[in-house]
Amino acid sequence: MGDLLGVAVLGAGHMGADHIRRLDRVVSGARVAAVADPDAARAKEAAAGIEGVSVHREVESALDAPGVEAVLIASPGPAHEEALLAAFARGLPVLCEKPMVPDSAGALRVLEAEARLGRRLAQIGFMRRYDTEYRRLKALLDDGRLGRPLMLHCTHRNVSSPPGFTSAMLIDSSVSHEIDAARWLLGQELTAVTVLRPRSSSGAPEGLLDPQFVLFETDGGALVDVEVFVNCGFGYQVRCEAVCEAGSARIGDDHGLLVTARGSAGTDVPQDYLVRFVDAYDREVQAWVDATRRGRVTGPSAWDGYTASVVAEAGVRALENGTRVAVDLAPRPELYR
Amino acid sequence: MGDLLGVAVLGAGHMGADHIRRLDRVVSGARVAAVADPDAARAKEAAAGIEGVSVHREVESALDAPGVEAVLIASPGPAHEEALLAAFARGLPVLCEKPMVPDSAGALRVLEAEARLGRRLAQIGFMRRYDTEYRRLKALLDDGRLGRPLMLHCTHRNVSSPPGFTSAMLIDSSVSHEIDAARWLLGQELTAVTVLRPRSSSGAPEGLLDPQFVLFETDGGALVDVEVFVNCGFGYQVRCEAVCEAGSARIGDDHGLLVTARGSAGTDVPQDYLVRFVDAYDREVQAWVDATRRGRVTGPSAWDGYTASVVAEAGVRALENGTRVAVDLAPRPELYR
Amino acid sequence: MGDLLGVAVLGAGHMGADHIRRLDRVVSGARVAAVADPDAARAKEAAAGIEGVSVHREVESALDAPGVEAVLIASPGPAHEEALLAAFARGLPVLCEKPMVPDSAGALRVLEAEARLGRRLAQIGFMRRYDTEYRRLKALLDDGRLGRPLMLHCTHRNVSSPPGFTSAMLIDSSVSHEIDAARWLLGQELTAVTVLRPRSSSGAPEGLLDPQFVLFETDGGALVDVEVFVNCGFGYQVRCEAVCEAGSARIGDDHGLLVTARGSAGTDVPQDYLVRFVDAYDREVQAWVDATRRGRVTGPSAWDGYTASVVAEAGVRALENGTRVAVDLAPRPELYR
Amino acid sequence: MGDLLGVAVLGAGHMGADHIRRLDRVVSGARVAAVADPDAARAKEAAAGIEGVSVHREVESALDAPGVEAVLIASPGPAHEEALLAAFARGLPVLCEKPMVPDSAGALRVLEAEARLGRRLAQIGFMRRYDTEYRRLKALLDDGRLGRPLMLHCTHRNVSSPPGFTSAMLIDSSVSHEIDAARWLLGQELTAVTVLRPRSSSGAPEGLLDPQFVLFETDGGALVDVEVFVNCGFGYQVRCEAVCEAGSARIGDDHGLLVTARGSAGTDVPQDYLVRFVDAYDREVQAWVDATRRGRVTGPSAWDGYTASVVAEAGVRALENGTRVAVDLAPRPELYR
Repeated sequence: MGDLLGVAVLGAGHMGADHIRRLDRVVSGARVAAVADPDAARAKEAAAGIEGVSVHREVESALDAPGVEAVLIASPGPAHEEALLAAFARGLPVLCEKPMVPDSAGALRVLEAEARLGRRLAQIGFMRRYDTEYRRLKALLDDGRLGRPLMLHCTHRNVSSPPGFTSAMLIDSSVSHEIDAARWLLGQELTAVTVLRPRSSSGAPEGLLDPQFVLFETDGGALVDVEVFVNCGFGYQVRCEAVCEAGSARIGDDHGLLVTARGSAGTDVPQDYLVRFVDAYDREVQAWVDATRRGRVTGPSAWDGYTASVVAEAGVRALENGTRVAVDLAPRPELYR
Repeated sequence: MGDLLGVAVLGAGHMGADHIRRLDRVVSGARVAAVADPDAARAKEAAAGIEGVSVHREVESALDAPGVEAVLIASPGPAHEEALLAAFARGLPVLCEKPMVPDSAGALRVLEAEARLGRRLAQIGFMRRYDTEYRRLKALLDDGRLGRPLMLHCTHRNVSSPPGFTSAMLIDSSVSHEIDAARWLLGQELTAVTVLRPRSSSGAPEGLLDPQFVLFETDGGALVDVEVFVNCGFGYQVRCEAVCEAGSARIGDDHGLLVTARGSAGTDVPQDYLVRFVDAYDREVQAWVDATRRGRVTGPSAWDGYTASVVAEAGVRALENGTRVAVDLAPRPELYR
Repeated sequence: MGDLLGVAVLGAGHMGADHIRRLDRVVSGARVAAVADPDAARAKEAAAGIEGVSVHREVESALDAPGVEAVLIASPGPAHEEALLAAFARGLPVLCEKPMVPDSAGALRVLEAEARLGRRLAQIGFMRRYDTEYRRLKALLDDGRLGRPLMLHCTHRNVSSPPGFTSAMLIDSSVSHEIDAARWLLGQELTAVTVLRPRSSSGAPEGLLDPQFVLFETDGGALVDVEVFVNCGFGYQVRCEAVCEAGSARIGDDHGLLVTARGSAGTDVPQDYLVRFVDAYDREVQAWVDATRRGRVTGPSAWDGYTASVVAEAGVRALENGTRVAVDLAPRPELYR
Repeated sequence: MGDLLGVAVLGAGHMGADHIRRLDRVVSGARVAAVADPDAARAKEAAAGIEGVSVHREVESALDAPGVEAVLIASPGPAHEEALLAAFARGLPVLCEKPMVPDSAGALRVLEAEARLGRRLAQIGFMRRYDTEYRRLKALLDDGRLGRPLMLHCTHRNVSSPPGFTSAMLIDSSVSHEIDAARWLLGQELTAVTVLRPRSSSGAPEGLLDPQFVLFETDGGALVDVEVFVNCGFGYQVRCEAVCEAGSARIGDDHGLLVTARGSAGTDVPQDYLVRFVDAYDREVQAWVDATRRGRVTGPSAWDGYTASVVAEAGVRALENGTRVAVDLAPRPELYR
């Protein structure tokens, strides 16, 4: 097991448990070495069934556990600063869920601590940068084909907000994703912000200002507007349209990257089956490995393989003869019923 | 390393090398234990840099290599029968690329061999069953909401065919995917086939019958038509529309699953960010693990985390004051430039 | 009124009444001069309120009525032959609803009669040739950009079939539209036809073969397939995809003409507001003329015009000052409430 | 000709000439009775070939011409006030192109003049209210299914601006369409406006502030944002998304009205062929009338009608026999080649 990266996961709530599952069963090359949560029972449950993992109440104890080579911070935001500084002190690489640190003073302390180290240890969990559609949009903006970006129109809608969600959280929890995405897509810093407040939806909890319309200006002269509406009722929608000097590009409408330029609006058609089906191949092999490790066989069977051969042969005869050809299968063995 | 499934990969050509990469770097819980190819240099190259792998010329030697617990067959079709039978003889689970065996007589021998074992060992590589869109279509057909399927309209287009591609291969290599997909989607066997041959495209090589239009009948009374066009020139397109008693559903047009029923045509909107961004989370953590194992830090930095906090705080002030608020950042440390 | 084309409408059923309304109120340059129907009450009702119209039981009497210069035949199919021959005998131009004549022997007699005249008098009511999407598709095929058409995939779906609809009528009533559209789009004659019959939908009336799948071959080597499904339950859908040597083009999915070629799938974006809004201008002026003739004023009022001026002035000040500018309207006069 | 509404058209420039053509050849129930333009040659040219029309230099002379019952004002904006007041003085109904009067003081004088009359005579040319997509959106908002509208996101893009187009004209010429559309769609008045100015596109003429981002507040608490970009280069795009308490609806993307509500995003499928093809029927009959008045016969011929009968009969035999049936056509007469 020495070859796999040993990760300590801090926080075993919803997000932490999901990352533990991911490190254990989805990601290649890592293993969960330690789990920490003030609620020890929760930590224990999240770590159940994982070989060689240790369970902890305290952050420091988890970071010092045997086999820990890296840290994934998924505890509540207010606990991040202490955890990041502890990881820095040990020289451990960190993946820290957003927000890095909720208040900017604490965020600055973390920034300065890492800067003093003189090398980067932390990656912040802005996961949209890893979304296929966002990456295609970023690549398009970077290749310069559409010219300089002038505006980003963003939409961020949730079905409903969780209990205790405040008007400020529409900005610092929801729109914070757009804050990072806009900076990343444009390669520019945001310099000013204005928030407009239409009359709130009757679907929003009493007193919550929802929706809001947020406008950012950038140091490159671009404008970013964000509709944030966390009680829209109908679905989770994240969209972004980049309007550039020579075209616009839009993601988030369930049709990949829609580009409008030179008189036409369209999407790319893949040129190769590997592009179209790369994820299917990955899932196929993962499913096979998972089943095989559990001693099971699932997926298409030898009967499926045999049948395909028989039908294909009939098809070739039909092609050659120009007639209808019946498919003649051997009886189906018991094993495949 | 004992915990990871040791896989022997047979065949180190284009497809085999891709599966080796996948097992080594993408899939969780497996490792490449052996690679076999008659071309030993090719096998060696495909196995380069993988810890604990052995390289072989012969199938049998690879299957008997230490640590081999399962087999992935990616050699040319004519070699599959022997490889499958050798794996069966050793009781090794197999993932076998399609076609299982190109000729139906050989396919029947494999089927009977596994049937004699009395337990399944083989999974055949019909990877469309693992494609997200196909799975959504299958789930929709299975839930009965649209009633009984009556017809499948399928499209299978390639930019161009490789050298040596014959008219028969449009059926037994290309349409074989639709043969399996149709059987799987409908849960029915195909009973007859007719092939129509419009005048060939001038974009097809001399003598190749391309496109073809293939019609399958099923034992459930459904009709399956397939346009196969392997020199369409414009892209790789795989589409399928299922026409049912109470609606139709279509995949493959770059907009997920389009369902037409009860007077409206539309796509589902996800209800949860995990549905929308599950792949982004997987990629994010994989990218972090990969970089960390190589001693590198990539992805969003502490500067990005700090900036997001500052901008979000400005946004909350803008919300509270109803005014434009400037964003005031600390100087950017050298480390983050 | 001498300038307007005087039209005799034969048949005052559903279709005839609709054409009478169209000639009277929608189309420019025509007037209804005579209406004929064996059911005199029905003819009278359809002609009610139209100035200068005469009402008839017999075709001949209508054709000979004063002011009749042309004929629109909207009677049942079996009555068409006699009506067409009567119009030809008088040298009257005819627009004849489809089918021209239901049986081919009668159709041939009409054809020969007109051929003997040595000049065309009849236009047949294949109205799809006048549909915007079909016209765009036809223009695209004709300009040669996509190369030679190889296949047409057509869909023809109705919510439900009227009482008395037979299995044969799926062909000779429904698919007859595709028969003409295919000939027109391709510029080729159809040379053979095959009909496949999947198991009928449980939504179809007992005994009706519905859906059917119809295959046409053409003298240009193209293939035309038509799914006809007249009890699909969910909507009226007419679609057509033309697959050509260098791309494909599709209409009927509520997004204009979708063209796939050279690696991208997309729709044209209009270059001019007249293209985008030409129909709106036509409707606007027609609505104004209609209201004015009835002594009424509808549509946007002077209050709307005044308000637009005030808001636009405020907008220009906001642009110049860079600030929020309040809109200051005069009190709204009673007349505009 | 007494039955047709006699219209005086003021202004024979681009827009006036288009309206003259529309009244003469497209619209039912009207005729052009008089044309006025200070450039008499231009007026004469626009009126050429129209029976019974008189040509004028002066507005008053045109309004007093014989047969004038209504007025269409298509002269430049600054001439509108005088023309409207002259029409009011004569009690003539008016359709006045936008802007009604460019400056709000003049607009108020017109408003007060009509209010003094005590009855409406003027309709203002906000033609978007007659666009099919806008009307569907308006109907959807009015039926209350999506709840109260909270925001409108609008886009108004032109390929390029004409010479002399100023930064203010982006507001008072282009956005004036959205000003009326927003008021109409929402049934609310606009109360304040803010204009944001991203860095201008390098595709815009020197000194022109283009694009702009305009924000309107309404007396119902809604927010309206408009991207106006008159040198976008790639096309003419007018889009509007209405975000409501229980769903959103979008027009302008070449796919009708896209509604997102209750977990799904989709478009309506028409239930009836008349809905789908109503425009085709109108165009068909108009084309037939136009050709017939010119003594010509165009459109589908008796050969097309005959062929459809023969093919349909072959299809019915193919259905009954379950075989391929050849189509046997009589020789094509010379007349139809």
